[in-house]
Amino acid sequence: MTRQTPTKYVTDGIGFVRLVDSMGSDARVVQAARVSYGPGTKTKRQDDKLIDYLMRNRHTSPFEKVVFEFHVKAPIFTARQWMRHRTGSYNEVSARYSEMKNEFHVPVTFHMQHERNKQGSGTPLKDSLQPVATTVYKRAIREAYECYERLLDLGVSREEARMVLPVSLYTEFYWTVNLRNLLHFLELRLDPHAQDNIREYAGLLLEFAREVAPVSVEAWERHWKEGA
Amino acid sequence: MTRQTPTKYVTDGIGFVRLVDSMGSDARVVQAARVSYGPGTKTKRQDDKLIDYLMRNRHTSPFEKVVFEFHVKAPIFTARQWMRHRTGSYNEVSARYSEMKNEFHVPVTFHMQHERNKQGSGTPLKDSLQPVATTVYKRAIREAYECYERLLDLGVSREEARMVLPVSLYTEFYWTVNLRNLLHFLELRLDPHAQDNIREYAGLLLEFAREVAPVSVEAWERHWKEGA
Amino acid sequence: MTRQTPTKYVTDGIGFVRLVDSMGSDARVVQAARVSYGPGTKTKRQDDKLIDYLMRNRHTSPFEKVVFEFHVKAPIFTARQWMRHRTGSYNEVSARYSEMKNEFHVPVTFHMQHERNKQGSGTPLKDSLQPVATTVYKRAIREAYECYERLLDLGVSREEARMVLPVSLYTEFYWTVNLRNLLHFLELRLDPHAQDNIREYAGLLLEFAREVAPVSVEAWERHWKEGA
Amino acid sequence: MTRQTPTKYVTDGIGFVRLVDSMGSDARVVQAARVSYGPGTKTKRQDDKLIDYLMRNRHTSPFEKVVFEFHVKAPIFTARQWMRHRTGSYNEVSARYSEMKNEFHVPVTFHMQHERNKQGSGTPLKDSLQPVATTVYKRAIREAYECYERLLDLGVSREEARMVLPVSLYTEFYWTVNLRNLLHFLELRLDPHAQDNIREYAGLLLEFAREVAPVSVEAWERHWKEGA
Repeated sequence: MTRQTPTKYVTDGIGFVRLVDSMGSDARVVQAARVSYGPGTKTKRQDDKLIDYLMRNRHTSPFEKVVFEFHVKAPIFTARQWMRHRTGSYNEVSARYSEMKNEFHVPVTFHMQHERNKQGSGTPLKDSLQPVATTVYKRAIREAYECYERLLDLGVSREEARMVLPVSLYTEFYWTVNLRNLLHFLELRLDPHAQDNIREYAGLLLEFAREVAPVSVEAWERHWKEGA
Repeated sequence: MTRQTPTKYVTDGIGFVRLVDSMGSDARVVQAARVSYGPGTKTKRQDDKLIDYLMRNRHTSPFEKVVFEFHVKAPIFTARQWMRHRTGSYNEVSARYSEMKNEFHVPVTFHMQHERNKQGSGTPLKDSLQPVATTVYKRAIREAYECYERLLDLGVSREEARMVLPVSLYTEFYWTVNLRNLLHFLELRLDPHAQDNIREYAGLLLEFAREVAPVSVEAWERHWKEGA
Repeated sequence: MTRQTPTKYVTDGIGFVRLVDSMGSDARVVQAARVSYGPGTKTKRQDDKLIDYLMRNRHTSPFEKVVFEFHVKAPIFTARQWMRHRTGSYNEVSARYSEMKNEFHVPVTFHMQHERNKQGSGTPLKDSLQPVATTVYKRAIREAYECYERLLDLGVSREEARMVLPVSLYTEFYWTVNLRNLLHFLELRLDPHAQDNIREYAGLLLEFAREVAPVSVEAWERHWKEGA
Repeated sequence: MTRQTPTKYVTDGIGFVRLVDSMGSDARVVQAARVSYGPGTKTKRQDDKLIDYLMRNRHTSPFEKVVFEFHVKAPIFTARQWMRHRTGSYNEVSARYSEMKNEFHVPVTFHMQHERNKQGSGTPLKDSLQPVATTVYKRAIREAYECYERLLDLGVSREEARMVLPVSLYTEFYWTVNLRNLLHFLELRLDPHAQDNIREYAGLLLEFAREVAPVSVEAWERHWKEGA
């Protein structure tokens, strides 16, 4: 059904995830599994045990029967990480087609380079440097957007002008994904090694998944979330 | 939504396709396309033109937004052709787990080998030979099923006993597929070079697709069905 | 390179796996990983540690850089399990196009139904019943093949006549698969719950994989083979 | 085999495509097709006719037997279009892990917005405005890179500092793709509606494909390149 679920926002108040639609639920997972493993009895308790069994033993195909349609607004650098997951279907705003709005992700707090984890952030930058970093960051995106507008004013095409826009620019896309692949996404993107921004989105996606298929998500948390 | 659509049967009266559920429709295709190409105006006529444009130019990703859940009963030789399409999700009855019923596909009419098309059937076998062919065919499947039961009676495991069962045996599966990949399936399986049995299923799938996304299917028929 | 590796046979002496070609090796995995994680130093010892790190943390994409081309001969029931793995590319003999040879898999030993594992075999059938089971089994496949030949003699097309052939019939196919997906196949098909026949093939595939990418396979065995 | 083919550059002299390795050729396509359609005779002329037949009738699976490993250096906006093709395998430089070099794509000539094609560029900007556009563009990327360095100097982590870098920044990745999917990529990315930059890369990829599988590529050009 087309849903009226509230849009869930990330902390900068611009990025969001919205569940547009979904198909199936825990009952569909059970139905698909029972075609393989026999109808058996059908109490709620036995269905839950079957889902637990499937999840524990990584019998993942029944979880492909639950499908989600999400509407996402996220910065380009996060969208880039997101779309490395090739198992979903994407439709994204085109900066060749549409003029981009002046909307950029700005970190609330800046962090220092992590000492051992070469790809991550460590502790927050000291307080006295936070406003300096914010000022430099904001200058960069303001300059970029001004140049973008200046190029458009000169008559330059959108597809060429946008080349100066930074990866903190907000984009939007629709994402169709099934529960199996969503949970795999969450294993990677809820992980402490994932970047803060995409981890926030993963947390929102997890909430939506739990609303649609609570027994499956609980079984996944029991068996895989921590181990991953 | 979970649907109460009638089950559609193939001509032998055993095989069927049932639409269990679906997500999205022509409106969803338009919504996904407009995120890329701008909202523009939104009359029914303009939406239909947009779908026609997308289909004509093979901008296929918006058609991935419509998703179907089918329940299929088909002979193994047809299920084998079906599952070569790797873009859907399958859950099938297991002959390792469940005892197979005495249900086999029997052709209503036998055909001669096609003279030029090495992989196809040609004109029907002459009338006098039809009952001979039917008798031979039925003897084969009767013997096979008797041996299967005999092996089970001896205590042989289901997974070993079933090895004697022919590919005309009926199996069942659930199939999740989006409209883009369903239409690609139909291009190949409605084709005159496809085997009669799977062409029947393709015809039923086409009817369901038309009920869910009539404008998209009509546009596909206009631009691609014949050319394929 | 096109390889002259020996063909490896399963125990019935008919089924086989042959490594036709491969691309990449452990060095390619390292090369792909270093584009993401920096060149760093490059001793053999450090490369091996990097592979171990990637495998342990399920950073699987570098393992997609090693690609195999296999030629497989297997019974249909095993080919059916095999092709449920949708991540490889398959080209299979067509029983619509070619007349099938009189080649079927016959179990050397029959097993009883497993008492608790509903989808598996348990202990061997007692000795006195083995020849009975073998006789029944062989009668079934002999009758089936005779009916197949009789139908062809009547002039029935190959695609219709083959419907009487059992799933123990041998088929052949080419399979292109990368190391990541091959290892996932092995996790499922080396498992004690997999059927004996496909486990034999999995064992042969593992040997070929080890010849091509020994460090990666060893790391996988250390971290995942047992846990799966 | 690991190849020593020359690296092919795009016109800005920074971006490139390099064929790292490949597996298979026209002969492999023929071999895979003949397992389905029978061995038949095997003159060069007949093999070429078979490839033409496969291509004309979109029997695409044998073309999955030829696999390429490319090393690509391209601006982020092009890499984004590239990676929407989900059928290949990617390993990319991480701006979280490594400090980015001061390398950006700068258009040699700027173009005006196309009047009718909303997503494309039209005729070149008039000569008098070219240096103005170039100055604005270069100022934007210089400012962005200066802010990036300034943030790093303040101690900000690489993953946060890089958020100010524009999508014209150069990135590098390895791409594994089979011939079938490469040709599909080329159909979309050689198209006049594709952006100039990615069309240049598509042209280079086409040259490499032709070197590896000349008969297949010629058949594709005959039947599909223009129609696409």
